[in-house]
Amino acid sequence: MTIRYPNGNHFYEQPASSNEHNNAVDFSNRGMALEDELNKSNTYYLNNGIAVIHKKPTPIQIVSVDYPKRSAARIKEAYFRRSSTTDYNGVYKGHYIDFDAKETKNKTSFPLKNFHKHQVEHMRQCLKQQGICFAIIKFIDDQSVFLLRATDLIDYWDNQATGGRKSIPRKVIEQAGFLIPYRINPLLPYLSAVDSIIDQTK
Amino acid sequence: MTIRYPNGNHFYEQPASSNEHNNAVDFSNRGMALEDELNKSNTYYLNNGIAVIHKKPTPIQIVSVDYPKRSAARIKEAYFRRSSTTDYNGVYKGHYIDFDAKETKNKTSFPLKNFHKHQVEHMRQCLKQQGICFAIIKFIDDQSVFLLRATDLIDYWDNQATGGRKSIPRKVIEQAGFLIPYRINPLLPYLSAVDSIIDQTK
Repeated sequence: MTIRYPNGNHFYEQPASSNEHNNAVDFSNRGMALEDELNKSNTYYLNNGIAVIHKKPTPIQIVSVDYPKRSAARIKEAYFRRSSTTDYNGVYKGHYIDFDAKETKNKTSFPLKNFHKHQVEHMRQCLKQQGICFAIIKFIDDQSVFLLRATDLIDYWDNQATGGRKSIPRKVIEQAGFLIPYRINPLLPYLSAVDSIIDQTK
Repeated sequence: MTIRYPNGNHFYEQPASSNEHNNAVDFSNRGMALEDELNKSNTYYLNNGIAVIHKKPTPIQIVSVDYPKRSAARIKEAYFRRSSTTDYNGVYKGHYIDFDAKETKNKTSFPLKNFHKHQVEHMRQCLKQQGICFAIIKFIDDQSVFLLRATDLIDYWDNQATGGRKSIPRKVIEQAGFLIPYRINPLLPYLSAVDSIIDQTK
């Protein structure tokens, strides 16, 4: 059958994604701005043949669906599920790209509780397959965005278990990560940092 | 907030995915078996550290959500959306893997209408980024499964516009593609065919 969008109306888009977000992941109410910025950037990369990177749909647990005649199937009851992977992946210059985007209101550090265990495990698995994995972290206070390699994130993550700190100092992110300055097109040129990572792995 | 699954009950899983499927893509009522077989195979590949390949969640257009106190957010109205990409992607030995899975009841050919234009365009874009793209096609009649390179699929797809046939002859799929014999673990060892593709591109 052919899918019929609700009026094909874009009005629903924003509440939809924000609803998804408020329920799909922790702290996600802080995440929308960065998500929109990344989606815009990915659209630019896609339309210009630079990279194919998409945000995955939010997983939904569907409980009940109506199948009205002559109109689109209507989901009557469903629940948000936690994803078992990161939110973004795709391909760039033959490299598998995999990352998640997080925002924090903290000023001096990034709390590790913004990540879920399964997201970190997914990054571990992708790294073993030679994927390029990282986190894009936005400090809301001064609107600065950094790309941090998954390997650096994982180091801090694992240290938690042995009494290590529960957050990554901003200074560490500034030194180990890459600052992503805002531009016009793309809004967040994070693939420049990815280029640096690719060069380092050569 | 923490996500609460509906009863954590697996009972809902099957109707959910079949509902999704009946509405998300054409002919999808024929697709469940193959999808389950591929999910099992991907789980094996993941658990054995061989590859990280996941099926993407079905995109949902959310219209209305309840936020009851002390319980999980409940989606009251939503609609299935057509994906703008293929269903499966991931990373294997440093290669970006991207494919879609389709079943057909036809015996002598595979109808191209099983694919949507945007899925084929997505494959084109991934190929440009040196991704490994293909279709996994199952002929229900004799339960034979083939991996067909996206390049071969795209050739037939493009020929439609110039009066070419609307389906790919099974003989072509048998000759140009790779037969994927059923095994125990993984159930569908399609990465063996991917290995051949990788060797050919070296």
